[in-house]
Amino acid sequence: MGLIGLGTVGSGVAKMLLGSSGRLLKRSGVEASLTWACDINKARTRGLGLRRGSFTTDYLQVLNDPEVDVVVELIGGTTSARKVVLKAISCGKHVVTANKALLAAHGDEIFGAAREQGVGVGFEGSVAGGIPVIRALREGFAGNKIKSIFGIVNGTCNYVLTKMTQAGWSYKRALAEAQREGFAEKDPKLDVSGEDSAHKLAILARLAFCRKFGLDAVHVEGIESLESEDIGFAGEFEYVVKLVAIGKSRKDGVELRVHPTLLPADHPLASVNGPFNAIMIEGDRVGRAMFYGQGAGQMPTATAIVSDIVDVALGRVQVSVSELQHFSPSLPDGKALGLDEVETEYFLRFTAVDHPGVLARIAGILGRKQISIASVIQKGRGKAGPVPIVMLTHRASEGNLRRALREMDRLAVLREKTVLLRVEKGA
Amino acid sequence: MGLIGLGTVGSGVAKMLLGSSGRLLKRSGVEASLTWACDINKARTRGLGLRRGSFTTDYLQVLNDPEVDVVVELIGGTTSARKVVLKAISCGKHVVTANKALLAAHGDEIFGAAREQGVGVGFEGSVAGGIPVIRALREGFAGNKIKSIFGIVNGTCNYVLTKMTQAGWSYKRALAEAQREGFAEKDPKLDVSGEDSAHKLAILARLAFCRKFGLDAVHVEGIESLESEDIGFAGEFEYVVKLVAIGKSRKDGVELRVHPTLLPADHPLASVNGPFNAIMIEGDRVGRAMFYGQGAGQMPTATAIVSDIVDVALGRVQVSVSELQHFSPSLPDGKALGLDEVETEYFLRFTAVDHPGVLARIAGILGRKQISIASVIQKGRGKAGPVPIVMLTHRASEGNLRRALREMDRLAVLREKTVLLRVEKGA
Repeated sequence: MGLIGLGTVGSGVAKMLLGSSGRLLKRSGVEASLTWACDINKARTRGLGLRRGSFTTDYLQVLNDPEVDVVVELIGGTTSARKVVLKAISCGKHVVTANKALLAAHGDEIFGAAREQGVGVGFEGSVAGGIPVIRALREGFAGNKIKSIFGIVNGTCNYVLTKMTQAGWSYKRALAEAQREGFAEKDPKLDVSGEDSAHKLAILARLAFCRKFGLDAVHVEGIESLESEDIGFAGEFEYVVKLVAIGKSRKDGVELRVHPTLLPADHPLASVNGPFNAIMIEGDRVGRAMFYGQGAGQMPTATAIVSDIVDVALGRVQVSVSELQHFSPSLPDGKALGLDEVETEYFLRFTAVDHPGVLARIAGILGRKQISIASVIQKGRGKAGPVPIVMLTHRASEGNLRRALREMDRLAVLREKTVLLRVEKGA
Repeated sequence: MGLIGLGTVGSGVAKMLLGSSGRLLKRSGVEASLTWACDINKARTRGLGLRRGSFTTDYLQVLNDPEVDVVVELIGGTTSARKVVLKAISCGKHVVTANKALLAAHGDEIFGAAREQGVGVGFEGSVAGGIPVIRALREGFAGNKIKSIFGIVNGTCNYVLTKMTQAGWSYKRALAEAQREGFAEKDPKLDVSGEDSAHKLAILARLAFCRKFGLDAVHVEGIESLESEDIGFAGEFEYVVKLVAIGKSRKDGVELRVHPTLLPADHPLASVNGPFNAIMIEGDRVGRAMFYGQGAGQMPTATAIVSDIVDVALGRVQVSVSELQHFSPSLPDGKALGLDEVETEYFLRFTAVDHPGVLARIAGILGRKQISIASVIQKGRGKAGPVPIVMLTHRASEGNLRRALREMDRLAVLREKTVLLRVEKGA
């Protein structure tokens, strides 16, 4: 084995392989020996107990060594990582990676090359490290048509939202706490923008719906502009707000979206708190199944990497890549539905002047667009200044809803941009 | 393929193979054709749409057909099923089964024979049909030492307990409702006695702890004598009562037990309700992971069977059986700890005459055995007749606790047998 990239996960993998190789050998019959560890920064080898002479700063030394059967890519990013992975495959090496950005953007190219070379690509670590969901989706639900996937797949966002919900904190305060606790990066953009979740959704959607989806197929909204006030109102309706990656198969295409979502308080995903991840899958035969665990972190992700290494050694990953349609270059393109075509229920918060008749005007505009109201909370009657009017709608077309909101933009009684959040009740 | 046994699950498998073979072929590249369907009762073929001439009442016709590569055993029981499975293996056929009783009792013999013949044995359907947990445990947590497994693995019991908890019903009434709704057999013994859960625990423990355990290693208590009163008291302490199959690895051996268990109301397993199943696994590196879904029923279990058929066709099951230590005849025997060696927290309900000083006498006896009390509820002060005294203890040795209870048996103030339930807080 050659390990390229000795960051947090990479050094976890090195520790597991060097520390537990006996256990691995005993259980799986697999003897995984770390021939090379490679990083541009030699200081990162400190404390790992690498064998003398097994460190290099030159990844080509790893790829050109005929002793190396498996290359573990843990560089991250999509530029050098793509180069390293494709070069490894062309050298006839199996690849194991946790790089969701790489697979979401260049999956076709990588799986195509692997299939041509007859090598395996393991990527269990790319989605929800501590949860073997790739395996389950790839192999566990054979014979099912997957109807939907709902995933809480970003621990940073879930930690922040949990703090905002349970402690009533603002987004800013919860994020600062997450950074202090090591649950958010210094630059949290990739996580809080929803982009990381979108990468994972693109990978899951390929496995679930057996179609190719580009990253541009996923509608993405993050949690940066979420206000704790709305989390509070959701709570009054007995809903919890989570950042959910949603894939829904419909007759006319697939909805792929990542956004803050209201889930009923008794939904199995609603109680997934802090840095935990969970993914709910609904199949036409198997019904609902859910997988829950630590989505990130050094050792959970290293566990996923090592399980892929074992699977490669036993020949299982190669068979999947060469036989399953998911990895075929001829996999058809999926039809992703536009945002206007989404149909679900909605949470709306209007900021209106406190006049009688305002609610009637809002309801009138909604009604003319076939949107009916399920429940309303009006707060702050009698106070000076604009007040919030919060409502849940019944199922409606998002296109119609947006047209209604644009029409309301012209109402002088509405004083701020209306908040729109989506509600998901079922799996 | 030859399918032996056309009961509920068997006919589900037939329907999936006959109805979705196109989907299966497209996704996995596997063409599974049903050469034979076999049952002693021809009436069971009705409505399945079997190919003419593919039904037989003689299983030997299936096993002797060189066209058959995979035999799916869905007869149930351990006598004929054992004979059929061993004979199939000796004919060089791969076997797929959902028979937990068979594997729990004769797993060694069956895996040994399969390893010798170089064939695969798939058994994803044997534990929690709709949840691909066997796959996850066998392959997903490589490099981890599994510390514990906690499973709600019997849908009948969970349905009954959910009704008792949510509606306050008696065991008898809840069971009758379960039978009416099709969630319990006419003769529910195997389920409500905990025996079915014990079979599943024995299979999971082999995979988790990489040791052989006989069925006699599992301590089993069912839900038949559980009183709704105790579920109510547990609720007052913010606990929920579930039938949990528990495997815990300790330095000195493994605790294997199935019994009604108090779980904190916010434990992930506490909200698993109705006929759903869930299994929580804790690994030393991966932390806690949980799998949730439909444990039984025709199509969830058929999904597991079909996923095994695909895995056999792709050669993955054979590799697992031949390479993984779990299936080796030289797998060491596990050391199961006796009930007296269990250490956990306890729920106790005493039925005592309503005298001052009774609690002091109980506490004194417990204290002398190193058992300390965490909290107490005393009800019915002032009423005539004996009253319940309910308590939770801190962590204690069950041996000590039982010795204390035996000593209390001699107290004239205690009027009924004391109820003892176990509490589990962590994973």
